Amino acid sequence: MHLFDNLDSGNGYKVRLLLAQLGISYKWTNLDLDKGETRKPDFLKRNPNGRIPTLELDDGTNLAESNAILWYLAEGTQFVPNDRVCRAQVLQWMFFEQYSHEPYVATPRFIVKHLDATHPRVAELPERLAKGRAALAVMNGHLAKHRFFVADQYTIADIALYAYTHVADEGGHDLSPYPHINTWLRLVASQPRHVTLPATPKAA
Amino acid sequence: MHLFDNLDSGNGYKVRLLLAQLGISYKWTNLDLDKGETRKPDFLKRNPNGRIPTLELDDGTNLAESNAILWYLAEGTQFVPNDRVCRAQVLQWMFFEQYSHEPYVATPRFIVKHLDATHPRVAELPERLAKGRAALAVMNGHLAKHRFFVADQYTIADIALYAYTHVADEGGHDLSPYPHINTWLRLVASQPRHVTLPATPKAA
Repeated sequence: MHLFDNLDSGNGYKVRLLLAQLGISYKWTNLDLDKGETRKPDFLKRNPNGRIPTLELDDGTNLAESNAILWYLAEGTQFVPNDRVCRAQVLQWMFFEQYSHEPYVATPRFIVKHLDATHPRVAELPERLAKGRAALAVMNGHLAKHRFFVADQYTIADIALYAYTHVADEGGHDLSPYPHINTWLRLVASQPRHVTLPATPKAA
Repeated sequence: MHLFDNLDSGNGYKVRLLLAQLGISYKWTNLDLDKGETRKPDFLKRNPNGRIPTLELDDGTNLAESNAILWYLAEGTQFVPNDRVCRAQVLQWMFFEQYSHEPYVATPRFIVKHLDATHPRVAELPERLAKGRAALAVMNGHLAKHRFFVADQYTIADIALYAYTHVADEGGHDLSPYPHINTWLRLVASQPRHVTLPATPKAA
């Protein structure tokens, strides 16, 4: 398999983390988002939506959307439960992540790390951070009663939510009001074959 | 099963459409979004994220996120392919729908139908519609080469994308530049046991 990715992307990191935990080796290509490399014609042939991560499978299929890639890799392994309701709950949390969490936890981090302090998008931060706090409160409430998000086991729902939550501070979030999230972050980081998201400097 | 829903919601309509096509009967409760009924304590016990649709299963579990509900209902039926790559592609298009399509096709419709013309959120429309056109162009390009989104068959990926695309005009989108989308909309509407999204008036 061949992963088209960006080193600083939490969405890409989700896939790298699962591939490491599954013990799967793969080719890896870094694309520079700041240079628009995901919007160039060659890449758009792989993913017309112009986003990383995109995973080229061994049959040549290009699979996009980080959480769909997680599902593809994890089906039939310990990282997706067998129970039908639990499988749907894994997807529920992954759709929550993309709709109610990522735009308000990951996007502030992108704005802070990749855009100049005078960029007009900086004005989006207060509202995005407020909605991010709402998502973090939902997670904290669930984790007050559960060790992991689904089925009392480490699944791709945890991987999907861990990716941007554990670096939420880089976008201006303060995680100290969410003790159950902090306990869960340590639990996720202690899973076998865990790999970290490399620290990258703020863009010039 | 008991569906907590809103009659005008495309996310709710996805679930109603699939339930009709599966021939499943269910209890149905309408919540008034404009009155904040999804943010009241009783409902937040069902879905702490405060959103419809939420499906109460017969064992009492409350399942949220429209596309996760579709997956739960469709697994093992003709509406989800058996092939592993195709299953991941169904999820790819459903994550595309929630991240790259819904905020820019459904949200404009919400702003136009539910908010007053002087509401500050009306200012969001130009950028949201521009991003919506990008999503519609991705769909149109795919449908230029495929009858349905995945595996040459009608799946829950089609249901997920149909729900807000077929009423995109209500949010200010013009679908005439997308001939392949229009062909596909007619094909989806011609599937057995199709039901329509009820026309509802613009909120006062």
